[in-house]
Amino acid sequence: MISGHVFIATSLDGFIARPDGGLDWLEHPGAGAEDHGYGAFVAGIDGILMGRATFEVVVRFDPWPYDRPLIVLSAHLGPDAIPPALRDRVTLARTLPEARAEAARRGWRRVWVDGGATIRSCLEAGLVADMVITRIPVLIGQGVPLFGPQRADIRLRHEETRAFASGLVQSRYAVLP
Amino acid sequence: MISGHVFIATSLDGFIARPDGGLDWLEHPGAGAEDHGYGAFVAGIDGILMGRATFEVVVRFDPWPYDRPLIVLSAHLGPDAIPPALRDRVTLARTLPEARAEAARRGWRRVWVDGGATIRSCLEAGLVADMVITRIPVLIGQGVPLFGPQRADIRLRHEETRAFASGLVQSRYAVLP
Repeated sequence: MISGHVFIATSLDGFIARPDGGLDWLEHPGAGAEDHGYGAFVAGIDGILMGRATFEVVVRFDPWPYDRPLIVLSAHLGPDAIPPALRDRVTLARTLPEARAEAARRGWRRVWVDGGATIRSCLEAGLVADMVITRIPVLIGQGVPLFGPQRADIRLRHEETRAFASGLVQSRYAVLP
Repeated sequence: MISGHVFIATSLDGFIARPDGGLDWLEHPGAGAEDHGYGAFVAGIDGILMGRATFEVVVRFDPWPYDRPLIVLSAHLGPDAIPPALRDRVTLARTLPEARAEAARRGWRRVWVDGGATIRSCLEAGLVADMVITRIPVLIGQGVPLFGPQRADIRLRHEETRAFASGLVQSRYAVLP
């Protein structure tokens, strides 16, 4: 049984990136010195499922920021989109069922689901067990939204909220069936 | 000097109403028995500035829910839009400057700013001092957004967050100049 887990920061108006993918607004004064639980979260996951758009941002990061294997969900990317140095750590999947099958084949149990479109697909498919959402106290007005249209309401159970001295507010929600 | 204050509930995906204005999703199990600070908030305000869309929802409420005078901001509504029984409590203003002048004429100092478009106009105009945002743990997927496009980032200072047993999470932010 594979469960999906979200750990993501958004602006107070619900964006995860600027329209061009920019993440500069994440650099909130004082936040860099705080432990927002990223290490503890990553310690509990087996692998990462990420959408194309997010992958195209993080693939430019140097050094590569993840020490967990990654599946990129994209109907269009070809193998050449994966830099040779990352081919032992990054795999492509064309569809969500293909990604699930690949994760299962590898024995993953807890999967970090990342990127707006991929999170929304997994929410709709009932694959997300919980979400940790960290709000940065800024309104950026436009960008890539975390959430989007759905077939029906999705009910959540609030588990915990922590407010940090920097002003970041982090809430954890379980997704109800 | 007039200051604007926001006190509003949103879905976790940032909507203040369904596309048809529906507010059923606000009825969260257990929340009705809690004090989310509405009374204390209202005690500190002199009057309400509200947009047309919100007014057209609340004007159908019986009994009338407000014990503070109300200015409705609308370029298009005429005097007939105000039911006779409310004409001593509700006034129309065609523009934000006209609404400010009316509020000043009445000696209002602290104004509750309500409704998505009106909140956004007042934020852009630098008229909002602080915002209390209460998150209901549900994703409704579409609706009337609280926030929208802006000319530039709006920075906030987190003041306080309270999590309620029902799962509602309420944060107060000061708007930075």
